[in-house]
Amino acid sequence: MLAEFTIFPIGEGVSLSKYVSRSLEIIDKSGLPYRINPMGTVVEGEWDEVMELIKKCHLAILEDTERVSTAIKIDDRKGVKNALDRKIKSVEEKVGRELSK
Amino acid sequence: MLAEFTIFPIGEGVSLSKYVSRSLEIIDKSGLPYRINPMGTVVEGEWDEVMELIKKCHLAILEDTERVSTAIKIDDRKGVKNALDRKIKSVEEKVGRELSK
Amino acid sequence: MLAEFTIFPIGEGVSLSKYVSRSLEIIDKSGLPYRINPMGTVVEGEWDEVMELIKKCHLAILEDTERVSTAIKIDDRKGVKNALDRKIKSVEEKVGRELSK
Amino acid sequence: MLAEFTIFPIGEGVSLSKYVSRSLEIIDKSGLPYRINPMGTVVEGEWDEVMELIKKCHLAILEDTERVSTAIKIDDRKGVKNALDRKIKSVEEKVGRELSK
Repeated sequence: MLAEFTIFPIGEGVSLSKYVSRSLEIIDKSGLPYRINPMGTVVEGEWDEVMELIKKCHLAILEDTERVSTAIKIDDRKGVKNALDRKIKSVEEKVGRELSK
Repeated sequence: MLAEFTIFPIGEGVSLSKYVSRSLEIIDKSGLPYRINPMGTVVEGEWDEVMELIKKCHLAILEDTERVSTAIKIDDRKGVKNALDRKIKSVEEKVGRELSK
Repeated sequence: MLAEFTIFPIGEGVSLSKYVSRSLEIIDKSGLPYRINPMGTVVEGEWDEVMELIKKCHLAILEDTERVSTAIKIDDRKGVKNALDRKIKSVEEKVGRELSK
Repeated sequence: MLAEFTIFPIGEGVSLSKYVSRSLEIIDKSGLPYRINPMGTVVEGEWDEVMELIKKCHLAILEDTERVSTAIKIDDRKGVKNALDRKIKSVEEKVGRELSK
């Protein structure tokens, strides 16, 4: 399955890149394939490994903050592998050209 | 923590209440406090029990469908209990009257 | 259509009820049917009136804050009126009893 | 502001790339800077131009389908330009290396 998630603390100032980079260290070390975008990170994996990763990031942000907002969007399609690249390729084929990524 | 979630199959027709009610049977039996609204269900609990419940609902819908879309929004604030009722009360106190629920 | 939305400032402390109640004053005055829940507000209306309302709330929060996070989830089904109550009734009928709201 | 959005029909089968590519044609022609990812599209612009674009895509999908689900996540930070690239750069600087995009 694919899961996009966004995690940030509430009440720790307006600059969040310190917290986002802490999450990304954890994601990068997890070994799961992922893609970052300006609004979140998309990972691909089975339910348990994906959710374990998101929990780890969520708890790492909560460690020294008081309130954390986390949003997760899951697209789970049976029998589909490598959806991380396939979804974009499939759309670019239909549009007939490369799109801005 | 509070978690609102919405789970539905893609490609099984436009009427989803059959699937939503299957989720709600599972939620109702879980024992976790919850509130349904027209766009999802909000539950309150610890990370593991909330995520175990959402996984159960997600897999129940995926059982006889091919693709499932699940969205989860988490608000995790340290030391806050009974947020399910407290958040609404706190806003109604500030607004100075009861609001439509 | 139905639209659930959540609007809050980032970097203004952990307590958000002051900002949420400012939004709810605007929503309540709009005349559009709505329901609040612990994680957001669901309104029913046509695209333009719903989006005009959300814009008003978003700008009201942005007025004296530096960064605002807004999430909107839309369910637009042709020919359906009074979805705010109908969706819950339809699920309760299938489950066979009243659910926690 | 930045807005990530995802639009898809409910009840039109499990393959959605036909609909996603229709949206992307509209986005690409809009002239607004955007980035696609496996779970949605992020655009940058002022509230009115961004919302006009999302409305156009939403209505294009609704044209020959019966039910459409649209999710929008907005990050609006005063005085920030070119957030589409800046947010990722800022995180990569903190992490100290390039990340998977």
